[in-house]
Parts: sequence; structure tokens; C-alpha cells
Amino acid sequence: MESMHIISTKQFLDKKILGSIFKLADDMEEKDRAGILINSLKGKILASLFYEPSTRTRFSFESAMHKLGGNVISTESAIHFSSVTKGESLQDTIKIISGYSDIIILRHFKEGSAEIASRFSSVPIINAGDGMGEHPTQALLDLYTIKKEFGNIDNIKIALLGDLLYGRTIHSLLHLLGAYNVDIFLISPEQLKLPEKYKNYLDKKGIDYKEIDNIKKIIKEIDVLYVTRIQKERFNSEDEYEKLKNSYKIDSEMLKEMKDNAIIMHPLPRVNEISTDIDDDKRAAYFRQAKNGLYIRMALLEMIFKKN
Amino acid sequence: MESMHIISTKQFLDKKILGSIFKLADDMEEKDRAGILINSLKGKILASLFYEPSTRTRFSFESAMHKLGGNVISTESAIHFSSVTKGESLQDTIKIISGYSDIIILRHFKEGSAEIASRFSSVPIINAGDGMGEHPTQALLDLYTIKKEFGNIDNIKIALLGDLLYGRTIHSLLHLLGAYNVDIFLISPEQLKLPEKYKNYLDKKGIDYKEIDNIKKIIKEIDVLYVTRIQKERFNSEDEYEKLKNSYKIDSEMLKEMKDNAIIMHPLPRVNEISTDIDDDKRAAYFRQAKNGLYIRMALLEMIFKKN
Amino acid sequence: MESMHIISTKQFLDKKILGSIFKLADDMEEKDRAGILINSLKGKILASLFYEPSTRTRFSFESAMHKLGGNVISTESAIHFSSVTKGESLQDTIKIISGYSDIIILRHFKEGSAEIASRFSSVPIINAGDGMGEHPTQALLDLYTIKKEFGNIDNIKIALLGDLLYGRTIHSLLHLLGAYNVDIFLISPEQLKLPEKYKNYLDKKGIDYKEIDNIKKIIKEIDVLYVTRIQKERFNSEDEYEKLKNSYKIDSEMLKEMKDNAIIMHPLPRVNEISTDIDDDKRAAYFRQAKNGLYIRMALLEMIFKKN
Repeated sequence: MESMHIISTKQFLDKKILGSIFKLADDMEEKDRAGILINSLKGKILASLFYEPSTRTRFSFESAMHKLGGNVISTESAIHFSSVTKGESLQDTIKIISGYSDIIILRHFKEGSAEIASRFSSVPIINAGDGMGEHPTQALLDLYTIKKEFGNIDNIKIALLGDLLYGRTIHSLLHLLGAYNVDIFLISPEQLKLPEKYKNYLDKKGIDYKEIDNIKKIIKEIDVLYVTRIQKERFNSEDEYEKLKNSYKIDSEMLKEMKDNAIIMHPLPRVNEISTDIDDDKRAAYFRQAKNGLYIRMALLEMIFKKN
Repeated sequence: MESMHIISTKQFLDKKILGSIFKLADDMEEKDRAGILINSLKGKILASLFYEPSTRTRFSFESAMHKLGGNVISTESAIHFSSVTKGESLQDTIKIISGYSDIIILRHFKEGSAEIASRFSSVPIINAGDGMGEHPTQALLDLYTIKKEFGNIDNIKIALLGDLLYGRTIHSLLHLLGAYNVDIFLISPEQLKLPEKYKNYLDKKGIDYKEIDNIKKIIKEIDVLYVTRIQKERFNSEDEYEKLKNSYKIDSEMLKEMKDNAIIMHPLPRVNEISTDIDDDKRAAYFRQAKNGLYIRMALLEMIFKKN
Repeated sequence: MESMHIISTKQFLDKKILGSIFKLADDMEEKDRAGILINSLKGKILASLFYEPSTRTRFSFESAMHKLGGNVISTESAIHFSSVTKGESLQDTIKIISGYSDIIILRHFKEGSAEIASRFSSVPIINAGDGMGEHPTQALLDLYTIKKEFGNIDNIKIALLGDLLYGRTIHSLLHLLGAYNVDIFLISPEQLKLPEKYKNYLDKKGIDYKEIDNIKKIIKEIDVLYVTRIQKERFNSEDEYEKLKNSYKIDSEMLKEMKDNAIIMHPLPRVNEISTDIDDDKRAAYFRQAKNGLYIRMALLEMIFKKN
């Protein structure tokens, strides 16, 4: 983390940096559960600048800021806002808002927006999702969840299931996994396979990965099953959808095959790719994963302000 | 109040519980007017999760939270929000948001939502209105207003005027009045009369009530005139509307008939069922009633966190 | 400032009052830059009641409130809100919201709204723009910017460029300039000239002003160039627009002609009337101007609460 901004997972490709973030997140959780008030960011102001709504991500950052003693100013949906409709550029908006706040959480529908914002801001920018681009804090909380559940990341067997072509979350997580020694299984319909550039990246990092045509072939041996949503429209035909849909839906039948200490992850929101029947199984880790977002964001805010 | 949640007026059908809430609300008002800072909820986070906008209700809860030293994360209108449009279930949303907050204020367009939310939340839920369902804190502030204005609730003569068929506010208030010994007059157009189930409830509780066809018959003897809005469309015809409308509009002429210490209440917003000409009359209690919402909500927040 | 409300620039037509506001704004900036926490408004609640969105104005008030230790309850866009759609009057809304807050920042699409609100509010109202009416804190921050950049306002030569007919900002600033001894140049297309009533005002105040047909004639001698946006539709024809547009666009060529210590101001948002090429020139004062809004609003909040 050389920059004061958090724009891309590329900034975190170092086990030592990742380790220190995770350790700080552990500390944050411990203090939070003990009810200890942290006042390290007292007097600081976080601005949520969301050009498209994302209640969960926004609430998780704002809750993190409050838990550190800071204040929040917030837009739910800046796209409806005057300056935007009057045609103000992102640059101008950022120049002004960075005069009113100490950190900006930016969610934007357009890829590259966070990087542009960082060039014009006088305060740190955190990319909270920029269209087809990145959402680095999501990738960090995903990786943190694996670390927390297993105690380590090396030697873990991870299956990525669903839409591997368009899934921003999957791409960002794969990037971070490049720092570790893991086994990866890729399971997707033919037309939603992982793009070549990510396979090349895994090759370059010397990471073992296999493309598998059916989750059932490896369900018994994996440690992590990371599920993402496939939109029905992505299938080639209704026929194909009907034929394949059960291979991409996780339910109690499939759970029976899994190891006792395996976990199921999902970036949420889910629609019906994971049956609610399994929510109470201890292996269903997706709500713990969402909660980890709070602690990761507390850790990142703490680090940014300690640094600057 | 056995549950940590506030879902229904049914939880409050006990004079002792109601008395202790009202006493705490009195204390809250006294401290607030004296400018005493209360820090009992320092470090706690209230999440406003409003699926339909209601500025007054939201502001009153958020102001209450701030006055107790707590913090707020807020959605004005969650219906426009990503997770909803992506089809996330209320259950999943609640599971996640309850990980980021210490209490959730839920406003939802669908009856029964608050009860569903309470089953999936790890933190207390307060129902701030669920469609045709309930809005228990409104009923509590209504009852508190009567208590405050008269010193007692027993032996008070209360006229309920307007749409008694659809009025959620009226139904909830009637429910709470079941704990007291009051006289009730019901005045509504024929087609907007109180449903049988509420009459049965009053019978069961041994409460004296009369259906009256014109407010003028009892205007001189009542203590409380609770006015609600009737939508013009609810009348059978334009003729009937023209004939009846003056019996459902409160103005200075009608005020002349009322006792000197009687009060007029209204849940607000009003349109034109109460003339603004009488706003400065001391018997116009509706703005005091709205303000009481602040103190009732402070009291409820205080009780919930003391309990948990 | 006799009233507790801030409704119009008319309240500030006094060098002594303006001087004390500017001095307090200087203090606020000094403390803010030194990282000194000001807790003067601890326990106070500011309500942002915005009937039309304006992120920059809202954020600047809310940031100011937080920096003084106060709390905020906020609506981004009250027009979508229940009470409004149910037809509640501004009076009723203000009566209720003033029961939940200690000060209300009101942005409304209708001229005169802030004055109406002030008559029904139990707490101070600050007009944050009321349609074609006023936006007094914008005028104060504009004047403060001139004071800060030059050390004084008397004897400054100010050119006002663009739409002088509809520009609310220009009209309010001209009003405040009436307290000083300045030279004013008015440059606009024929059909967007300053209305007679403002010229009469300047005459009455004995202020020297000239209407000029081209900025180039006076560009070398002015101290302040205040630029406003002209909507293309305001021109009589496409031809006229093409012919004139370059006289109303500020770029590096025009900058070459200006004095070394002159400044360029703009109320923002800009579209393309100022080229981004000149943003890094020290004479480009518009982002400093926006930042001054924070300190002016801190000063005004501080004064209002000290007074009441």
C-alpha cells in the first residue's frame, strides 16, 4: 500500500501487507465484540459518494467509520443529484467534496472512475466498485474470510462456481490469491468461462488450476466453494438453462457431499443459487463473510489515517 | 415487553408497562429541555431501513438516537436500492444489516414485514409501519399524548372521527385503549365504519363505545377528538361527499362547541380536515403530539438497550 | 443579523457584521487546519431539508456541523417524500421538523419558501436556495473569497460575466457589494443583461458600474472575473451562439491578458465556460471559493447558536 488511495487489488499483492491488514481486522473485531469504544478517527469525516445505490456496501463503510469515532456525510444515489444532471465532471465533484471531507468512498457505474478520482482528490479515495472494474475491499474481505475460517490460505482448495466471465468479484479474488499457494477449480457453463488473461495470470504465478465441467466431480475434496450468480439470460437457450441449472444451485443434497469443515461463500445478494435451507448449516459462511466486511473496512480506514 | 423487538401494540397491553414507558418519556423530555446531554447509547448504531419514505418518522427516530449519544446509518428509500432490485429477500438484507448495526428501524410497504425481520435479525427491530399492518410507536405516542394532556387516561371520553375502516392509526390506538377504562365514540360515514373485529375487541375488554352519525351530537361532552383523513374517493358519490364533508372538517365554528380543556389530535400529515385557523388554539394538540413522538422513541430506545 | 434566521442577503448589508462573520470564518479555518476539535455545538442537531438535491451545498453544511461537534439528520430529496406527495404544507412540515432539530437548512424549488418556513419554525432556518429567490450563504462565501484573496474589498475592480438576467448568484453578490466601494463591469449578451432594479440599486448605493460588450476591453485591468454559466438556449439563435461563445469562455489565451494577482471565480458547477486547462493556474480561485463555503457556514452556525 504505497498510495494513500485504495483503487485496485493490485496494491495488495504481498503476503506481508495482507497479513497486517488481517491482523488489524482481527483486533478490530475483538474490540468491537468487547464493546470497547475506539476513538481513533474522532473529528474525521467520511463522505459516501455513491453514483449507484449499494446499501450493504455503504452501510458497512459508514458503520466502520462510526465505530472508529468518525463522522459521515452521505449520498445514497448521486446520479439523481443536481451537479450530475447539470453535467459536472467527476473531477470537479471530487475536487469540491475532498474539501469537505477527510476520505471519500466512491461507488460509480463507470470503470476507471476511482482511478480518475484519485488523481484529483486532496484526500484518500476508496474504490467501492467502479462498474466492470474493481471492488478491492470485497476481494480483501473474501480472502480474509478464508484466512479466518481455516487459519491459513496456503494449501486451501478453492472451487469458483458460476459466471466466471463477467464476475468482477471472482476476478479480483483470483488476483489476490496470486500471492498464495492454493489449488483452484473453475466451474462454469461453457460460454461463461474465465477469460484467458486471468488464466495467464494464474500460470505466471505458478498456481494450480483446473477447469471442471461439473461441481460434483470435486465436491468431496474442496475446502471452499465460492458461488456466484448466473443470470438466466447468460445461458444459450432455455433448454440449456433447464439442463444445467441444478449444477449451479447449492442445496442440502449437495452439502451432504462436502467435507465437514468446508465452507460455502457468496458475495451476496443471492437470488436462488443457494437454497435458504442450508443457511443454518455451519458450513454456510456467507453471512459471516458479509460481517467480515465491517472489520476489514475498519482496518483499512485505521491504516489509511495512521499513514497520512 | 418480553421480546427485544417492537413489532405490535399487542406487546404493550399492560398498564404497568405503559406507565413505565410514559414515565421514562417524561424524564427524557425534562432532560432534553434542560439541555442535559444523555450519552447512554454512545457507540451504538441505529440503522434506518425505510423501503418507503417517511421523513417525519425517520427524523424522529434518528433525532432520538442522536439525543441519546448514538450514531445513525440511514436509507431514505430502500426500494430504489440495488439489493432490492436485484431481488434480495428481506431476510437476507436483515441478516446482513443486523451485522452492521445495533438496532434496525424498519419501514416497509408490506404487512407482516417487521415480524419476518424480527425472526432473522441478530439485533432489535422496531416496526415503523408495515403497510396495512401496524405502527406501534405511533399508537404509543398517541396514548402518551392523552396521558400527558389530562394526567390520566381512565375516564376520558374519546371521539374517533373519519375513516375508521382503513385507518391503521385508529386500530392500533383502540388496541392500547383496551388497557384502560374509557368511553369511545365512533363517527364515520356509513361505508367507513369500524370493522367488527375491533368492536368485538372493545366488547371483550368491557369498553363502552357508541357509533354516532354526527360529531355535533357529542362535541360538547368529549375530552379528545381524534381526527383522521378521509380520502374523497372513499365516499359513495360526489353528492354524498358534498353533504357530509362539513361534518368531517374541524374549524373554529366546531371548536366553539368543545370543552375548554378538550384536545384535538391528528396523526399528521393533514390535508384539509383540520383548518389551519385553529392551529394557535391551545386545544389544537397535534403538533405537541408529533413532538411527543421524539420522547416516546427516546424512551423505547433507552429501554431496549438497557434490557439487552 | 437581527433575526435568528438566515433568509436573505438583505440581513447582511453592514460592513461591521460582514467583517465579524469573515473574522470568525478565518478563525474556523485556522482551527480546522490545525486539527483542533471544536465541540461548541455538541448535542445540537442540524436537519437538512432539501426539496431538490444539491450535494455540494448539503455536504458543506453537514461537514460544517460535524466540525463543530454537532449531529445531522438529512434528506437528499424531500420531494419524493411521503408527506409531500400526501400534500402536506411546508408550514406543517416545518412545525414538525423544528420539533426534532435545533436548526433547519432548507433548500426549496419555490421562491419565498425560506421566509414562509421562518414564520412557522421554532428553530433557526437557513435558506440554502429557494428557486429564483436567494441563496445568501453563497453570496457570503463569494464576498469572503474576495476579502481573503485581496485582504480588502474596497477599491476592487470586479467583472461579472455571463447570464446576468437569471443568475441568482450574481444578484445576491451585487446586493452585498452595495456595502463597499467597488468598480463593477457587467458583461453579458444583449438579451441577458442585468435587470433594471439591480442597476437602480447600484445607483442608489453610489457604486460605479459599466456595461461592456466584450470582456477583452477590460480584461487587463480587472481584479476579479466572476464567471457564470450561460445556457445555449438563452441565445437568440445558433448563429449568435457561435459568434459569441468564445467571448464567454475563459481559457489560457484569455488568462494571458489578466493581471498577475487577478482571480477567476465561479459558483460551480461549471460546464465548459472555464477550460480545465487553467485549473492549476494560481489565479483560478473557484475551488478555493468552494472550500471557503465550509468556513463561512461554520462561522454562521457558530454565530446563530451563540446568539440563541
